[in-house]
Amino acid sequence: MSKFKLAMIVALCAAVVVPAFTRTPQAPASSSAASAPDPKLPDSKLPDPKLVEDLVYANRILSDQGVVDAFGQVSARDDKDPNRFLLARSVAPALVTKADILEFDRNGEPIDARGRAVYLERFIHAAIYRARPDVKAIVHSHSPAVIPFGVTGTILRPIYHMSAFLGAGAPVFEIRNGAGMTNMLITDNKLGDALAKSLGGGTVVLMRGHGSVAVGDSILQVVHRAIYTEVNARLQAEAARLGPINFLTPEEAAKADAQTDSKASISRPWELWKSRIGKIE
Amino acid sequence: MSKFKLAMIVALCAAVVVPAFTRTPQAPASSSAASAPDPKLPDSKLPDPKLVEDLVYANRILSDQGVVDAFGQVSARDDKDPNRFLLARSVAPALVTKADILEFDRNGEPIDARGRAVYLERFIHAAIYRARPDVKAIVHSHSPAVIPFGVTGTILRPIYHMSAFLGAGAPVFEIRNGAGMTNMLITDNKLGDALAKSLGGGTVVLMRGHGSVAVGDSILQVVHRAIYTEVNARLQAEAARLGPINFLTPEEAAKADAQTDSKASISRPWELWKSRIGKIE
Amino acid sequence: MSKFKLAMIVALCAAVVVPAFTRTPQAPASSSAASAPDPKLPDSKLPDPKLVEDLVYANRILSDQGVVDAFGQVSARDDKDPNRFLLARSVAPALVTKADILEFDRNGEPIDARGRAVYLERFIHAAIYRARPDVKAIVHSHSPAVIPFGVTGTILRPIYHMSAFLGAGAPVFEIRNGAGMTNMLITDNKLGDALAKSLGGGTVVLMRGHGSVAVGDSILQVVHRAIYTEVNARLQAEAARLGPINFLTPEEAAKADAQTDSKASISRPWELWKSRIGKIE
Amino acid sequence: MSKFKLAMIVALCAAVVVPAFTRTPQAPASSSAASAPDPKLPDSKLPDPKLVEDLVYANRILSDQGVVDAFGQVSARDDKDPNRFLLARSVAPALVTKADILEFDRNGEPIDARGRAVYLERFIHAAIYRARPDVKAIVHSHSPAVIPFGVTGTILRPIYHMSAFLGAGAPVFEIRNGAGMTNMLITDNKLGDALAKSLGGGTVVLMRGHGSVAVGDSILQVVHRAIYTEVNARLQAEAARLGPINFLTPEEAAKADAQTDSKASISRPWELWKSRIGKIE
Repeated sequence: MSKFKLAMIVALCAAVVVPAFTRTPQAPASSSAASAPDPKLPDSKLPDPKLVEDLVYANRILSDQGVVDAFGQVSARDDKDPNRFLLARSVAPALVTKADILEFDRNGEPIDARGRAVYLERFIHAAIYRARPDVKAIVHSHSPAVIPFGVTGTILRPIYHMSAFLGAGAPVFEIRNGAGMTNMLITDNKLGDALAKSLGGGTVVLMRGHGSVAVGDSILQVVHRAIYTEVNARLQAEAARLGPINFLTPEEAAKADAQTDSKASISRPWELWKSRIGKIE
Repeated sequence: MSKFKLAMIVALCAAVVVPAFTRTPQAPASSSAASAPDPKLPDSKLPDPKLVEDLVYANRILSDQGVVDAFGQVSARDDKDPNRFLLARSVAPALVTKADILEFDRNGEPIDARGRAVYLERFIHAAIYRARPDVKAIVHSHSPAVIPFGVTGTILRPIYHMSAFLGAGAPVFEIRNGAGMTNMLITDNKLGDALAKSLGGGTVVLMRGHGSVAVGDSILQVVHRAIYTEVNARLQAEAARLGPINFLTPEEAAKADAQTDSKASISRPWELWKSRIGKIE
Repeated sequence: MSKFKLAMIVALCAAVVVPAFTRTPQAPASSSAASAPDPKLPDSKLPDPKLVEDLVYANRILSDQGVVDAFGQVSARDDKDPNRFLLARSVAPALVTKADILEFDRNGEPIDARGRAVYLERFIHAAIYRARPDVKAIVHSHSPAVIPFGVTGTILRPIYHMSAFLGAGAPVFEIRNGAGMTNMLITDNKLGDALAKSLGGGTVVLMRGHGSVAVGDSILQVVHRAIYTEVNARLQAEAARLGPINFLTPEEAAKADAQTDSKASISRPWELWKSRIGKIE
Repeated sequence: MSKFKLAMIVALCAAVVVPAFTRTPQAPASSSAASAPDPKLPDSKLPDPKLVEDLVYANRILSDQGVVDAFGQVSARDDKDPNRFLLARSVAPALVTKADILEFDRNGEPIDARGRAVYLERFIHAAIYRARPDVKAIVHSHSPAVIPFGVTGTILRPIYHMSAFLGAGAPVFEIRNGAGMTNMLITDNKLGDALAKSLGGGTVVLMRGHGSVAVGDSILQVVHRAIYTEVNARLQAEAARLGPINFLTPEEAAKADAQTDSKASISRPWELWKSRIGKIE
């Protein structure tokens, strides 16, 4: 039935954006599945189509804004089943379409990969969704301005109100501590759990010699945080060359965050970023 | 009557740029108002349509030139009523159209918001228009290269003739001095007044942990100043890494400013920047 | 007759690029002049139309490559009359068309301005053409990476073969030395002569608190030099942060320059840069 | 017959992409050759058309990604004859089409230049193909972020897993050591051999005051390496300003390289980069 559920997602997308499926030869099969739906199917259990659409926009926006290149991923917890999450097949975020979105279980295994390659680092997402019930969306990236902070011990802290979610500063995950010499990647649940532990109750964790992870209570919030983490890193590196930095205090950060992370505040850039992407498939 | 006046602005815009209003469902109502104008209306009291058009261009240009992202605003004093100013509804500057321009009173309250959300920081504009009768246009931004100067105590000074308006250097507004721990934003008239006091008789004021404000005697001048404030910050930060900087002296700055802030001089980039935007709605 | 000569230039351009003249109301008058040419006119005295076309491309390329913004100019010596040079009317280089090209005498005065505003700093060009008979083309710009070198005393030197034309390093013109407190601009022939003296027999001279000038024996060469002066400044500033720089020795610079400034070598980027501009008017 | 073989390459391309040849007046002659093929020709000896196509994409991608400007080249060893390699005629990489690809022998001489100018530095490629039988593709560039490392003695080392192929750090070729004062270019086989010796068994070698070279076992791998060498240089330079860098250890680099240089891993960005280029000729 989960297979059917996924076929339904695809079919649903196909119904809305048929021309997009000129790129996905799987579509005809899905369409035929869709043309004969099981009348007993609990449709309400399918992820909200808006969630799938927002996830595709999130992929494109993060690429357009320079947070991800061909690597990095954004996921969302299934709004109907909190033990599952949505994540694209292994493909560059800039190229993700609705048909590329797959569903994964709490251990990071695809419910039905439909023959497609999946991201090696899906365990980053699985582990954090397990550890943090409040988290509804996750971005992992090699966001360029953030990398230097992960390898130098310089704490990434909020230089202005827009990145107030960084609070007292982002922790750094050192994979060597638990796992010694590795290939640097989070390729299983054990490494994922260690990373989730470094993140703790925070919003962003850096990964030494690798990248970073941002979490949020919605796709809009996590995209906002991933982008302004990168912006803050650029600004902080520039400022550090001019002299000692007068950061937001933890109290200022908490107050500013209450404002800048409000729905009204994060919706404004989201609309702008979407307008740069245009229609999606 | 002020309601009618605003309806007239919208109708006027509608008459010129009808297709734009496919995006503004309010338009039909406005048009009907326009189709039955009060013959006693003092039309000459409406803001110059050219002012509204220039304000829309200013929004788009500041975004295109990287001074504003989804946040930041540009306003203009009403040329017919100096106690009022024009400012867009709460929306990313890159997306502003003529129909988004609202009018505000001297306390920063919208004359008629037409049901639209307004910028939280409109008090920046209101306070400065109150304090500085010579100011006809204001830009508030989180212009990226300027942020590091606000948090490090390094004075932003004119490195070349194009930013001579910076004179002896831009002051920095420290919100902590008067208000203690805040969310960093200028959310009322008291904070606005404090900011206006820091600006004094100057052209630009930085805001620690937040952004900056530029003022001018016209939209063209303030856009010019906001853009070259950002350029100067980039150049000064680069130069500071090479060695001690030989800045323009205050006398050189005054003489250069007389030339580079002339109408002839600021019209040239304005035409270039407009050409990059194309037609507006 | 010089008036006629200029009318001929315009008419020539008009003949080739008629649609361009929808932007130039002066065109019809010029065309009528062209329709009744003086049969005794020495046509061979008109500047080569290819020179005018290359000058327009040079304007567009320098803008596209980030060497000029709305300010800065590029000129070429008249191939038929070495006492004259070609330079656009006062307009942003990105917007220059063939119809904007005017001719100036050895003192920097327009032969026939056709009612158009001319650049304030045309004396930079006039003075250098007077002082350096070998110079056939000149670029003046506020090229951003170069500005910091002009104000810090750090010598701009060739970091790699592509900027070997910088030789033992570019001199800096300090306008204060001869003229005291000024508006920083080269607004007359006396200041122009002082600048030309600082340039000496070199290829590039920086102007403290203002910009820089590159010269060449052709439009292609001067565009090449202006662009790679900017690139060298970027690279040198980056390298200076890593440690002491092993520059090209003067001997290496001379040998590399003989290769990289060859016609074959500078034609390759010119074709690439032109391809980014497309057709011109 | 080698002349014929090349004519066949051109004809093959022509058959696939006829409209492209509006740019290549040589096409008709080639076509006529193609219309009367020698039935005895060992067609299997022609380079794989996919190899030629990938080489054109490599040229365009390296330009689009900022690794090459008008200068720099990418070559591929002939898959049918290991003593030959494919390289474009002398033209900016962004403008390369299939018809521009020529074949060279092990000494760097064109098999048949078809009257076209060839790159002066083809000896870089010839020498490395002679010295390193494992190398199937080579990129030479003036990749901007890498230049500062070549002239300051700062070792370029892997800052994160994506550039793990840098291993223990890239060597620097000092042309002065063997050749004294030169024009900095690799203009013959002797200089090429000296460069190949500096490269040794490595993946990347920097060239002081000039540029760098990356090698790989496929076009995809070498493009991947050239791009992430540039990215690593940018990140390392930024990090160096924040403090001492915790680089990947040689063991981490080896393990990460095994993952990030896998076919699956390097195919993902390749598809993204190709999608930015679109159809090629």
